[in-house]
Amino acid sequence: MTGKTDWLIEHYRQVNAAFAQNPPISLEESRDLNDHWGDATTEPGGVDYVEVDAGGVPAMWVTPKASVEDRVLLCLHGGGFIGGSMYTHRKMFAHIAKAVGARALIVDYRLTPEHQHPAQINDANAAYRWLLDQGVKAEHIAITGDSAGGGLTVLTALHARDNELPVPAALMPLSPWFDIENGGETRTTNLMTDAIFGGETPMNLGFLVQILLGEHGDPKDPSINPLYADLTGLPPLYIQASSTEMVVDDSYRLAELAEKQGAEVKLETFEGQQHTWHMGAGRAPAADEAIKKLAEWVRPKLGLA
Amino acid sequence: MTGKTDWLIEHYRQVNAAFAQNPPISLEESRDLNDHWGDATTEPGGVDYVEVDAGGVPAMWVTPKASVEDRVLLCLHGGGFIGGSMYTHRKMFAHIAKAVGARALIVDYRLTPEHQHPAQINDANAAYRWLLDQGVKAEHIAITGDSAGGGLTVLTALHARDNELPVPAALMPLSPWFDIENGGETRTTNLMTDAIFGGETPMNLGFLVQILLGEHGDPKDPSINPLYADLTGLPPLYIQASSTEMVVDDSYRLAELAEKQGAEVKLETFEGQQHTWHMGAGRAPAADEAIKKLAEWVRPKLGLA
Repeated sequence: MTGKTDWLIEHYRQVNAAFAQNPPISLEESRDLNDHWGDATTEPGGVDYVEVDAGGVPAMWVTPKASVEDRVLLCLHGGGFIGGSMYTHRKMFAHIAKAVGARALIVDYRLTPEHQHPAQINDANAAYRWLLDQGVKAEHIAITGDSAGGGLTVLTALHARDNELPVPAALMPLSPWFDIENGGETRTTNLMTDAIFGGETPMNLGFLVQILLGEHGDPKDPSINPLYADLTGLPPLYIQASSTEMVVDDSYRLAELAEKQGAEVKLETFEGQQHTWHMGAGRAPAADEAIKKLAEWVRPKLGLA
Repeated sequence: MTGKTDWLIEHYRQVNAAFAQNPPISLEESRDLNDHWGDATTEPGGVDYVEVDAGGVPAMWVTPKASVEDRVLLCLHGGGFIGGSMYTHRKMFAHIAKAVGARALIVDYRLTPEHQHPAQINDANAAYRWLLDQGVKAEHIAITGDSAGGGLTVLTALHARDNELPVPAALMPLSPWFDIENGGETRTTNLMTDAIFGGETPMNLGFLVQILLGEHGDPKDPSINPLYADLTGLPPLYIQASSTEMVVDDSYRLAELAEKQGAEVKLETFEGQQHTWHMGAGRAPAADEAIKKLAEWVRPKLGLA
């Protein structure tokens, strides 16, 4: 109620409770609630927002007044492939772009249940290709994304590699959801410290996968589960996750696999944070600290002093 | 908690309770809470936002993709002169601009307690003059604003008249706070139907005036209280207020005075709405209906078919 309220935890509790209702809330209600995700983030200020058609995909240019025009963060929002948008994550990615001193392009990729896999990855790939077509050099692009968008971050780089496009300079998955099989022991051991997915009424992540892949889909398909993909040729990776969130195991496993296959990997875990705590930017010191570290790591990768 | 939550009423109750605390919340806490005002409004979509220096005053261009570039709404946000910003009201004014098919310029005028009267009106005037200097014709400008900004709407037009500038084509005050003496019987009779200013713990509006005018300020000063001003030469006015909000009496009185002095006045009251219910745009049908009516009224005034 006052400045001390943790808006992000409050939102996560509301979402968790809404999905635990019997019957669960409607898609329309869940989307309206989801639209409030970004309420946790402050306005960074001094940033402009312009919607654009990025090769057939709706997207938003996020341009900090003080930024280098030809350095770009390609941003893939989270939301379990069913939620999130260029609006919910506008301020969070703007905070990151402002810290880096680059522009950001937030991709408003198609969502489930209306659009199944591979619509999401196709849209992310189309936006990446469009950036290259605009004359932005791959070595000046970093891809970042949270949760489901964190998975897309890696998948987009792999798709570029497989299609003879240059890979981006760097990847920054945040609280990434890589394992759509939903394995990994932290899904159990961190159940009680994860406000959105866990608690007394854990969310059914399997349902999100079911509507993403359809009845006959394979959660081991490397085109959607990077833990089963060939990871050779990945650019440098900086993964941030909370050691007390349920999906952190995905980061441990992907970091190990990518490193074994020759990638430069930095995995940093933050204790006691919620899933995609970066959404608290401007209010939560832990979010601002994480974003500062992202900027420090990626600036030299993009050739920024 | 679900799509059925009235986010605006919920916010108003939080603000009311926060100010009723003993001791009251700090300025910093109150500003953080105030930043959530606009959480009630949906993203209209298809609108771009670019910050600009409007003659020395921070402002934001709000440009719907489908809008006529040289038709402009000059927007003066509410917040009792102590709160509100171009960020809290970004989406609300964007909904209005989109409905009208014009651009909007939201003025981020200086606030109390750091800046007393006449900083607020000076900033609004400077932004209006800047618009004219940019080549926008006065006959293509409408000024709109809510609450304290509704008062500034009229004061800006009067200042233009007094300084031999052309007056704008139209004014649209929304739930305007004109009477900074805080008279009028609806401040008593609507006490229990006004979630932000009234209820069991009414807000001390006199305090807002005290920090606006300083110890020796005069709440009858016509440069800040339009009920004491010469209203001749005002452009057509369309005032929207709720018949059940506390400040509605200000609208009754200003409408009567302006009409007597020759202005074309349309005053429309909406029953059972909260102060500046337009902030519910995209979620609350009453907000969308009010905005539709604003657009229908102002389009011909701006020469839009």
